[in-house]
Amino acid sequence: MESNSKLETAGKVLRCKAAICRNPGEPLVIEDIEVDPPKAWEIRIKIICTTLCHTDITYWKMKSGLVAAFPRIFGHEAVGVVESVGEYVEEFIVGDTVLPVFLPNCNECRDCKSQKSNLCTKFQNNYPPNMPRDGTSRFRDMNGEILHHFLWVSSFTEYTVVDVTHAVKITPEIPADKACLLGCGVSTGIGAAWKVAEVEEGSTVAIFGLGPVGLAVAEGARQRGALKIIAVDLNPEKFDIGKKFGVTDFINPKTCGEKSVSEVIKELTNGGADYCFECIGLASLMQEAFLSSRKGWGKTVILGVEMHGSQLSLNPYEFLRGRSVIGTLFGGIKPKSDIPLLAKKYLDNELSLDEFISHELSFQDINKAFELHQEGKSLRCIIWMDH
Amino acid sequence: MESNSKLETAGKVLRCKAAICRNPGEPLVIEDIEVDPPKAWEIRIKIICTTLCHTDITYWKMKSGLVAAFPRIFGHEAVGVVESVGEYVEEFIVGDTVLPVFLPNCNECRDCKSQKSNLCTKFQNNYPPNMPRDGTSRFRDMNGEILHHFLWVSSFTEYTVVDVTHAVKITPEIPADKACLLGCGVSTGIGAAWKVAEVEEGSTVAIFGLGPVGLAVAEGARQRGALKIIAVDLNPEKFDIGKKFGVTDFINPKTCGEKSVSEVIKELTNGGADYCFECIGLASLMQEAFLSSRKGWGKTVILGVEMHGSQLSLNPYEFLRGRSVIGTLFGGIKPKSDIPLLAKKYLDNELSLDEFISHELSFQDINKAFELHQEGKSLRCIIWMDH
Repeated sequence: MESNSKLETAGKVLRCKAAICRNPGEPLVIEDIEVDPPKAWEIRIKIICTTLCHTDITYWKMKSGLVAAFPRIFGHEAVGVVESVGEYVEEFIVGDTVLPVFLPNCNECRDCKSQKSNLCTKFQNNYPPNMPRDGTSRFRDMNGEILHHFLWVSSFTEYTVVDVTHAVKITPEIPADKACLLGCGVSTGIGAAWKVAEVEEGSTVAIFGLGPVGLAVAEGARQRGALKIIAVDLNPEKFDIGKKFGVTDFINPKTCGEKSVSEVIKELTNGGADYCFECIGLASLMQEAFLSSRKGWGKTVILGVEMHGSQLSLNPYEFLRGRSVIGTLFGGIKPKSDIPLLAKKYLDNELSLDEFISHELSFQDINKAFELHQEGKSLRCIIWMDH
Repeated sequence: MESNSKLETAGKVLRCKAAICRNPGEPLVIEDIEVDPPKAWEIRIKIICTTLCHTDITYWKMKSGLVAAFPRIFGHEAVGVVESVGEYVEEFIVGDTVLPVFLPNCNECRDCKSQKSNLCTKFQNNYPPNMPRDGTSRFRDMNGEILHHFLWVSSFTEYTVVDVTHAVKITPEIPADKACLLGCGVSTGIGAAWKVAEVEEGSTVAIFGLGPVGLAVAEGARQRGALKIIAVDLNPEKFDIGKKFGVTDFINPKTCGEKSVSEVIKELTNGGADYCFECIGLASLMQEAFLSSRKGWGKTVILGVEMHGSQLSLNPYEFLRGRSVIGTLFGGIKPKSDIPLLAKKYLDNELSLDEFISHELSFQDINKAFELHQEGKSLRCIIWMDH
């Protein structure tokens, strides 16, 4: 079957189903599309399953700006199998299980070669929204109209094409739905706890915002043996979910009375948390996280993308007491080296992923995933392509 | 002589000369004073030499506030010999060469036991301005009026009394004038480069403000093998001095034309410096330092104490690219363990200190040191007590 399939499709334009977003905020429409064969340094992937991440929603709603481009194929958390490879591709062969990933990793630039950075200099933000080497799309609808890519992944389609710098080979031993989670949000939270903050045994952690990223921070902190994992969220329903990920204490800012959240955290931790994580994207919350960190070594990690374009205002005196603030994209995860390690941790029972999957759907019901997300009901909804 | 001196003075009130500041901003007056014997966990030190640091000037001018207290004995960079010890003192014996130090180090609290902090929790800011255990002074003038201590050190006197948590034993092999430098500013800069930023070989460094602390950052960075050490200062005379400490490039913000300092630094470093240090205490400069740091791992270290009480306003998006900001007091130096290491580095020729000494004076000319400092003419002026 596999070799037969190769013979039939490799090097040719391929027709398949994709969920197209024609206009911002509108339900996706599943249509037949044409997918070009991979060019040099590209691979074509048959998607097994994909999920919906908050960033998809953000861009789906976005009506204007540099990054708004329609019609478009969204999706950037997925796992699949290499269907065919372009010229010069040596890292992947047909049949490899791969995770397409939004963050490039060329392994050649100064950043990729350094252990301190995960922000590839060579391919960073090349030609959004399409292919990073020539800025063109590999997708067309049946009328010949170009369909734009999204974050160099575009996984809401049976087949996609990605650059080799945007794909990671992973072991097929890990179940596809669990692997799929590693493509963005969950890795971001775990990476932030493990690689950016370097949470250690016995430490105290405060997490602002208990969405999937915040929960992944909690999971990362739990696996590292954090003593106290305090979650801050306005939605009390999140608290029961948090417990599954190791959260020990909950703070609802609405019920703090006259105390600020940072005052409550300082009481709970005898002076401030060792590590604070902002997972929402509000400057005011980043400020509160900073104030919640202990003197001496308190570290605040910013994961959230500020949603109102506000400046972050901090008191320099608070810094002088040894506090620090660090920001991170994708939790400091270097895709090609770290994602396989996370997969291994899962297989070795050193990382829980199952609890992140709240729903599963067939591809044809993909709009349901958008509804669940917007209702705040889902953590991760696995969308199976062949069901 | 030594044992004779012990017999004569130990346990007794001792009369000696001190430079008293009677009123803010006024010249010091050298008078006879009485120094009490050390109480429990205290030592009395015969000062060999002392220097004037910018913090002395700041507090000397301060007319009101919690920390303004007159009459007062200033000085907090010094070296001396233990004249007598109080009850329970085991760490020091008479004749030990010691460095009194403003930052306490109890070696018992969580912070002192951690490698990550240098901010003793147990004694931090206890009873300013006087002795940390009971808040009283050990100094009186000849009319019986209390003279206040300064930063738990007070070295502008032939004899002072400090708590054991505020003293470090050092090898008498290091010349007293060099040892003296390790008590505040120079250690702060070197510590910031070595312990806080962890500057490594081949890296790029930008230093905002080329006073003694900034020069010490440069010296620390040079010893670590930094490739490029860029100094930013409004005074072009500082540039020649900077070269002695390893500075490779100079930026005078007045002559940048239409470019911002951070733009010039980004050009010089191909995208931004690996490590930026703010050594002045201006929020606007901290912001510029942050913008001068490279994506991926750029670290901004705040050493300056903000002088106008301004908030530090930063763009959260700049953080997301892996940048960080960290503040530090005393450059992360843990007095009891790190100062002896710095002394050893000096003796092993792995640290230059000589160039920091720009002037030397006798104790009776101490007001000259204030003048030189205010004219911006001195780096460190050694004030010898017995000359």
